[in-house]
Amino acid sequence: MKTILQSKSKKAVIDTDGPFTMIGEKINPTGRKKLAAALQEGNLDYVRDLAKKQIDAGADLLDVNVGMAGTDDVDYLPNVVKMLASEFDIPLCLDSPNPKALAAALPFVPGKPLINSTNGEDRTLDAVLPLVKEYKTAVIGLTIGEEGISNDPEARLAAADKIIQRATQMGIPIEDIVIDPLVMTVGADHNASAITLRTIELVRKEFGVNINLGASNVSFGLPERDVINQAFLALAISAGATCAITDPMKYGLTIKAIDLLRARDDYGMKYLKYYRAHPPVAATPAPTKP
Amino acid sequence: MKTILQSKSKKAVIDTDGPFTMIGEKINPTGRKKLAAALQEGNLDYVRDLAKKQIDAGADLLDVNVGMAGTDDVDYLPNVVKMLASEFDIPLCLDSPNPKALAAALPFVPGKPLINSTNGEDRTLDAVLPLVKEYKTAVIGLTIGEEGISNDPEARLAAADKIIQRATQMGIPIEDIVIDPLVMTVGADHNASAITLRTIELVRKEFGVNINLGASNVSFGLPERDVINQAFLALAISAGATCAITDPMKYGLTIKAIDLLRARDDYGMKYLKYYRAHPPVAATPAPTKP
Repeated sequence: MKTILQSKSKKAVIDTDGPFTMIGEKINPTGRKKLAAALQEGNLDYVRDLAKKQIDAGADLLDVNVGMAGTDDVDYLPNVVKMLASEFDIPLCLDSPNPKALAAALPFVPGKPLINSTNGEDRTLDAVLPLVKEYKTAVIGLTIGEEGISNDPEARLAAADKIIQRATQMGIPIEDIVIDPLVMTVGADHNASAITLRTIELVRKEFGVNINLGASNVSFGLPERDVINQAFLALAISAGATCAITDPMKYGLTIKAIDLLRARDDYGMKYLKYYRAHPPVAATPAPTKP
Repeated sequence: MKTILQSKSKKAVIDTDGPFTMIGEKINPTGRKKLAAALQEGNLDYVRDLAKKQIDAGADLLDVNVGMAGTDDVDYLPNVVKMLASEFDIPLCLDSPNPKALAAALPFVPGKPLINSTNGEDRTLDAVLPLVKEYKTAVIGLTIGEEGISNDPEARLAAADKIIQRATQMGIPIEDIVIDPLVMTVGADHNASAITLRTIELVRKEFGVNINLGASNVSFGLPERDVINQAFLALAISAGATCAITDPMKYGLTIKAIDLLRARDDYGMKYLKYYRAHPPVAATPAPTKP
């Protein structure tokens, strides 16, 4: 199944039978004080720089999240999106839980963006799906039900089912629905990743849709997060994930390696091309002290 | 299913339902001129040092390979094994294609070692399985048939079937047979890893036995081998591999991360303990240049 996103002239395809798709996560002020300060000053240079770096590092789409405590992202999202759409030619992923911000930004997005996100709550479905339909976008559906986040993969599957039913009944094509099985940190619950991996398998088997992850959450609070994140990407892709909101600068080469190892890179050309364009700065992985 | 190996007083368990088992690969003169020279001079200091380093880095077993071009490993294996058995308390994996070397070394190995390897050729089965039975060892069976190495996962499965049938008919318990689905380099054939991953799934589903990998072969000839090897370990473990002959200094933390992500490490205690005992020397993974 193919979810096709577009910018002015470029296409990004999330494909259950293709290589993995990277959605650059860096345009997000959470935990990035400099970015938050710049956004609040109306200075878009920092966003511009993050967009450029992620595109250079092989991002297929850019996630755009401008949510900051004490502010309403409706005041920021349209301008940021306008700038990105005019200066860069890459499909966008509008990341906001706020339907007003999405509605205000969507008119400025050329092509076909991804909306991140809706979930399995009626309130959210009612607010977001009409925008998906009106603007003919694709949408990420978080596997959260009316009762919130469940630790039971079957309950997450049920939330996915509800999202898919509701959207397709409105005439939104199933290939435009990307399910997010939720990534919680293994630092808080050592079963967290296994629950996500099982949900990925269930959703993939039941619906055959594309599956997205907010992958970097998994290692929150633990040391050597990059080692955990790299391993998680491989495990999740093996289970059936097809795209992730992730850091292309850190994990681009790992993702190309996974594609190669899954026979989705003829003659290793993409791996080698990526390696040549992005030679590592330091040795990887860390050798350990004896 | 549990394959239990023993040294003088310690046990190593390869377990289809447990954490992943690391077999240290470093005692192997292939491509290590200094080790080869030391072995030929009868100097075992280098071997001693490699044993110590790998044990410190969390190896569960040590692979012992002393094969060198132009020499017969029957002249080296018994002495090396004798030294390791007397100075270290860790189960060994005797790695030789030469039944004479195995037969000469086995009397010096306390406990229950792993023999690496037999395969699906009659000639090899006839030479190695009697040693496995006599010394009550466990054995790795390479999925090579009479026609050599096949690129067809079903043919590799058939070789596994033959090894398992032949061994169990001789009274060797099935839990003492570890199947190796063969890891070839993706640098030579971009389907190589996918063939191995599929073979792992087939063997696991059909026989439920433990599965070993010579994991580092996969990246031979490619740049940034460590990135590929780490990703391959995760993909292979996800498919059903339960142990690997690998470099514990390089991949120990990755393997602990994979165990944690698969809910095989309660409260992340083993990951954290490993991290504290082996803090990385350099940042991982390599950030890429913009």
